[in-house]
Amino acid sequence: MRAIAERAKAAARRLRTLPTSEKNAALRAVAAALRAARGPIVEANRADLSADVPPAKKDRLRIDVEGVAKGVESVAALPDPVGRVEEARPEGPFLLYKQRVPIGVVLFVYEARPNVTTDAAALCFKSGNAVLLKGGAEARRTNEALLAAMGPCLPQDAVQLVGGGHEGVAELLTMDDLIDLVIPRGGESLIRAVAEKSRIPVIKHYRGNCHVYVDAEADLDMAERVLRDAKCQRPATCNAAEKLLVHERVAAQFLPRLAGLGVELRGDTRARALVPMKSATEEDWYEEYLDLVLGVKVVGSLEEAIGHIERYGSHHTDAIVTRDERTARRFLAEVDSATVLWNASTRLADGGVFGLGVEVGISTDRLHARGPMGLAELTTYKWVVEGNGDLRS
Amino acid sequence: MRAIAERAKAAARRLRTLPTSEKNAALRAVAAALRAARGPIVEANRADLSADVPPAKKDRLRIDVEGVAKGVESVAALPDPVGRVEEARPEGPFLLYKQRVPIGVVLFVYEARPNVTTDAAALCFKSGNAVLLKGGAEARRTNEALLAAMGPCLPQDAVQLVGGGHEGVAELLTMDDLIDLVIPRGGESLIRAVAEKSRIPVIKHYRGNCHVYVDAEADLDMAERVLRDAKCQRPATCNAAEKLLVHERVAAQFLPRLAGLGVELRGDTRARALVPMKSATEEDWYEEYLDLVLGVKVVGSLEEAIGHIERYGSHHTDAIVTRDERTARRFLAEVDSATVLWNASTRLADGGVFGLGVEVGISTDRLHARGPMGLAELTTYKWVVEGNGDLRS
Repeated sequence: MRAIAERAKAAARRLRTLPTSEKNAALRAVAAALRAARGPIVEANRADLSADVPPAKKDRLRIDVEGVAKGVESVAALPDPVGRVEEARPEGPFLLYKQRVPIGVVLFVYEARPNVTTDAAALCFKSGNAVLLKGGAEARRTNEALLAAMGPCLPQDAVQLVGGGHEGVAELLTMDDLIDLVIPRGGESLIRAVAEKSRIPVIKHYRGNCHVYVDAEADLDMAERVLRDAKCQRPATCNAAEKLLVHERVAAQFLPRLAGLGVELRGDTRARALVPMKSATEEDWYEEYLDLVLGVKVVGSLEEAIGHIERYGSHHTDAIVTRDERTARRFLAEVDSATVLWNASTRLADGGVFGLGVEVGISTDRLHARGPMGLAELTTYKWVVEGNGDLRS
Repeated sequence: MRAIAERAKAAARRLRTLPTSEKNAALRAVAAALRAARGPIVEANRADLSADVPPAKKDRLRIDVEGVAKGVESVAALPDPVGRVEEARPEGPFLLYKQRVPIGVVLFVYEARPNVTTDAAALCFKSGNAVLLKGGAEARRTNEALLAAMGPCLPQDAVQLVGGGHEGVAELLTMDDLIDLVIPRGGESLIRAVAEKSRIPVIKHYRGNCHVYVDAEADLDMAERVLRDAKCQRPATCNAAEKLLVHERVAAQFLPRLAGLGVELRGDTRARALVPMKSATEEDWYEEYLDLVLGVKVVGSLEEAIGHIERYGSHHTDAIVTRDERTARRFLAEVDSATVLWNASTRLADGGVFGLGVEVGISTDRLHARGPMGLAELTTYKWVVEGNGDLRS
């Protein structure tokens, strides 16, 4: 394991100064190579799928070769953040600026989805990082076939698959002298296991327990459209709404509209007095259903809504629907989440929608990157001084 | 300990939206209160100093009340990063922007210097964070007197001193649900102990093993001035030069000039063949002397200089002296340090010199903040969407 990480570190030093044109050419070659290797990739994927895998996982395990090739091409088309000059201060005695540089070696730990293999490889390579990929055991053959196709198009050791099961990962997570960043993607238990063991900085999100708060001054038609989109458009995503908070002044008018959503409702006492629904338990308020289920709570004030979100939420994505600007501004300022929205669906909190290109991941952490992460979040900066014999004394 | 951290988290929620004018007024009141409490502060400091403390530590332990009051006033004068809007994208269907927000609860762990108590308190408060201060046991009375003066001017639990010795710190470092960031300041052993135990993100620097590389194309007069400033102007600082690398084509001309520096030289075989000096061991190349000692190595090429810095350096601050722009650009790009300089002294790598105001610390980490850290590095961001019923579907 140490030898693999050392090779990644050596590769990272070479990748650091690779010109953008060479990186893009290599990525276009990777896309072509993936298409050319369609046969062996699909065969390997079939072998993975024929194992004893639960149906929900099978769906995530299935590869779409054209889809992953297009994903790699779209990374080639993104602007290169490396070398970008920020905060230049030419007015002093010397020229001073910050310049974007790669982070170094990135370790991705993930589960079934084999498209993470090609996405992570392309994103890390484009941003000048070496990457170690630890995918799920259930996707082993598919991942090996993908790397067999990609590898020859990329510099040596730029992308390496890592085996070795849980012990292997645990060993890598101690190598803070060789690996600079860990990004776990998958279920909460995987992410917690990585975060607990890692000596290396981890960027992650555990859960998306997202709220829509329908204020007393909401346009109720808009509120219904926003809620429907947030809850139903793709309920298994982390930015789907899981809870509805509704102000008591509009609850009697708004809650009957929920029948049209076709979702299972779980309400507090006041909600259930207005519309028949299951009773929500204390656990429900913390829950990320990832399904057509919605927790419903009637609140007496904006303060109560904010208090509830701060107590039970996951600081991922929360929205308010209101016509009152002062109320909206308080919500946007006081709700401490990675993304806050006013009169818009939580489903918009997405790297693609936000113009970041292929998404690296989503962070509910507070340092380095928060919310949807793009290519720039796979870089750091250095300070550069260009002087003419300048001294401190 | 948990109760203290919970109070800090509650305070952080209140501080998050405190207006800049209120924060600045409180900081000016703190400065006045420190001056008014000069008597008890100096008395407490005298009691700390009368304990059995080594002379070098005594120097760092001595308080300058007017100095710390001025420091707090200078933080009041800095622009407030909180609320700053970045990367606004008004061109889409909805308004999207990033907004700077406080990180939350920050834990400072430090040693003797009592000015860290007032600096950290002022910087964290100004940036809307609650702070827990764990100073050295040898400065306990001084720190208590400082907090007794400051406390009444600040919101409840905004600044709290933490006791409890090493076990107390170890306990706090597990509370990643309550504390968002740890900044250790002091010797390498303190910083390593914190980094090893922490479950919370840590921003730190271990060592400053900084290099000056004098290239074959250097202006040797400029090189001598830069090296003298970098090595001798304040040798005990982390951005002082510890090593000189000199190209073989100018070594015979340049090395005799070192006699004038008045520092102890420790050289490799080729350097010692040109000028009599002690022999450098393998350990010397890693060492941060923090004293009037300089390691000297003759190199055959730019590549050898960069390779040496990458192998033995601390990725803190490294400089090249050359007239050749191509050589300089390669050095600036390939040396992977927080600050790289061309024809300028390593001593310039400083928050004050870089225009960041009172320095929060220096980071040789790669995530979130790198190099000198200012007030902005004590904040994170949230994404804000202002829509008009916008949906994903």
